[in-house]
Order: sequence, then structure tokens, then C-alpha cells
Amino acid sequence: MVAPKTRDRILETSLHLFNQEGLAGVSTHRIAAELGMSTGNLHYHFRTKELIVTWLFRRFEERFAPCIDAHANVTALDDLWLSLHLTFEAIDEYRFIYRDIDYLLKEFPELESRAQALTARNLVATKAMCAGLAEAGVIAASPEDVEMLALQIVFSTTCWFSFKRLTPPQKSPAYGASALAAYYALTLLSPYVVGESKDYLNYLRAKYLR
Amino acid sequence: MVAPKTRDRILETSLHLFNQEGLAGVSTHRIAAELGMSTGNLHYHFRTKELIVTWLFRRFEERFAPCIDAHANVTALDDLWLSLHLTFEAIDEYRFIYRDIDYLLKEFPELESRAQALTARNLVATKAMCAGLAEAGVIAASPEDVEMLALQIVFSTTCWFSFKRLTPPQKSPAYGASALAAYYALTLLSPYVVGESKDYLNYLRAKYLR
Repeated sequence: MVAPKTRDRILETSLHLFNQEGLAGVSTHRIAAELGMSTGNLHYHFRTKELIVTWLFRRFEERFAPCIDAHANVTALDDLWLSLHLTFEAIDEYRFIYRDIDYLLKEFPELESRAQALTARNLVATKAMCAGLAEAGVIAASPEDVEMLALQIVFSTTCWFSFKRLTPPQKSPAYGASALAAYYALTLLSPYVVGESKDYLNYLRAKYLR
Repeated sequence: MVAPKTRDRILETSLHLFNQEGLAGVSTHRIAAELGMSTGNLHYHFRTKELIVTWLFRRFEERFAPCIDAHANVTALDDLWLSLHLTFEAIDEYRFIYRDIDYLLKEFPELESRAQALTARNLVATKAMCAGLAEAGVIAASPEDVEMLALQIVFSTTCWFSFKRLTPPQKSPAYGASALAAYYALTLLSPYVVGESKDYLNYLRAKYLR
């Protein structure tokens, strides 16, 4: 059983290099060199870079989908914060995917429909969650508001880390990137939050707002 | 005065190719070939790809900055819609910049501080605009709300087109991408809008919501 372990090592190293150096700049030669492996041996396991990316995309789907689906169990703001936090952690782990998405889809166009399906699934789950929060009386929002909120939250989960790169660096951020991202996403709900849940939002605000 | 025209043609063709094919995939050889020009001649005008990108970035700054600054004159929702529309058009014209930003900053790191400065300028102008709308009684928003709103609007102007790529295609969109993007950004304000301005928001909603 040496083969599966080698495959895993290749995938893990590829993920690391793609995250660090960008999908465009990392060739299979580079991956083989990083592993101290001949290119021939790497090609024996993965014939092309496309196969590696497709496998990593599948792992991302497997990692991301449960985070999305967990949205269904959210009935309070603190659950939502945790759920968003875990979602951002999954995205951060595979951050080359959304960050380098344009290059990825240009090079490997057959992944486009899967990427869109993942967004669609995220939208459906997030919409159900917002509707649930409205039903539970945590937020006051019309069906149209719920639709728009879900779009805003999914947009933020998908693109937040790309955007952060474009904002001036903060002096010694006290919290991890995923926690701050979750806080940001949560603030999208703030104008709709009613009753006691407002207290939790104020607690988070005091904690995260510099 | 042949040189300036050639420089312009090179920049225009480069912009077109970067937008169409992505910054990573377009070399100076490709640009020269597209122009029917020798690589030597192209290199006479622009010694490196970096110089071309830097010039295009400067043109983007010149195109984008007035759009941002126009936010200052916004005192009503329809002005805001127009201002956002023009902003998205500028971004769309130079869409390789925000779309391929990660590759761009990795290859040409000296542009990072300029990209961050542009975002910072956008944030300041958008915050002033939101504060102005609050003062004019168009929205009801605390200083903290204004801060958050500005961040949300700037995030959407910066990343919207990248995100759209990830959502399933719509059946025959009746409106241009920039108009829909402006509508989306405007909905971020909707929970804060008060009084008669709500009518304009409902008018837009009826127009753009499928």
C-alpha cells in the first residue's frame, strides 16, 4: 500500500504550493522537485496537472459541502458565527481555488459547472438558513430580503480573502483571518437583527472592531 | 510623432488580451504577434511586460479615481446608482486588474501598495458618501453602520465580477453587467433607506429582479 500514500503526499504538496505560489506558477516539475521525486514518477500517479487540480477540487467539495450544509442547523446568531467561521476555514485551507478561480476555469473549463454548482448549493443552504433565522425571530426580513442577504453572505464567503489582500494591512490583527471574515459576514445581517440577538452582535462588535 | 501612437496601440492591444485571456497567459511575444510587430520593436517601446502592466495600472487609476471621487457629489439614491454604474464600467474596462489581482501582485509586487492605496481611497470616498446620505436623511445609519456599509460597497465594487463567474448563468439577462452590479451594490443600503427614497429602491427592484 505505498501508492495511496504517495498520491496523498503529491496532493498535499500540490495544495501547499498552489496556495503559496499560485496555480499559474506551479508546474508538475516544480511539484516533483519539491517532493524530491522524478517527474516520471509523479506522472505515473497523476498524468497531468489537470488531474491533480481536479482531485484537489473534489477534496475541496468534500471539505466545503458539510460546512455549507451545517448552515441548515443554525437557529441563532452564535451558531451562525461558528458556521461561518468553519466555512471560511475550509476556504482558507484550499484558498488557491477561489483566489485563482479565473485562471483555474480558463485552464480547466470542465470544472466551471462544478464550481457553479457549489455556489448554487451554497446559495440554497444560506437562503434556507436566513429564512430559518427569520422564522425563529432572530432577524426581521421579507422573502426578498432573505434572497438578497443570502447572496451577500455567499459573495462574502467566496471572495473575502481576495479582497483582504487589497486593503491596507492592519497593525497586528488580534484575531485570525477566518474569525474576522466570519465577523464581517455576520455584520451583513446586523440591520435585520431584532430582540435579544442584538446583544450578541454588540458583543462581537466590541470584540472585533478595532 | 509615430512613437506615441504605437505605444497606445501596444497598450490597447495588451489591455484587450489581458482582459480576454488573462494576465498570466499573455506574453510580450503574444502581444507583438497580435499587433503584427516584431518582438524587438515591441521591446523598444516597452522593455518588459511589467512596464506594460504598470502603464495600464496607471491608466486604470486615472480612469477609476474620478469615479470614486464622484461619490462625493451623491446626495440621493439615483445619483448613487449612476455613480456605482460608472464605477463598475471602469472596473469592467480594466477587468483583468481585479480579476487577476493575485497573479498581478505576485509578479509585480511593487504595485501592491498602489492597489491598496486605491482601495483605501475608495473606502474613504464611499464612507464620506454614506455619511452624506445619512446626513441628507436618505438613510438612517449610525457612524458604525456607515463604516460597515462603505466596506460592503467597496468589497462589492472590487470583487463582484469575479463572483459572478461562479454563479450559474442567467437566462438572457436583460441588463448589462455593470447595471446589475450597481443594483446589487445598492441593495446593500436597502435596510437603511428611509422615507421617499424607498420608492426609488422599489422601482429599481421591480426593474432588475427577475
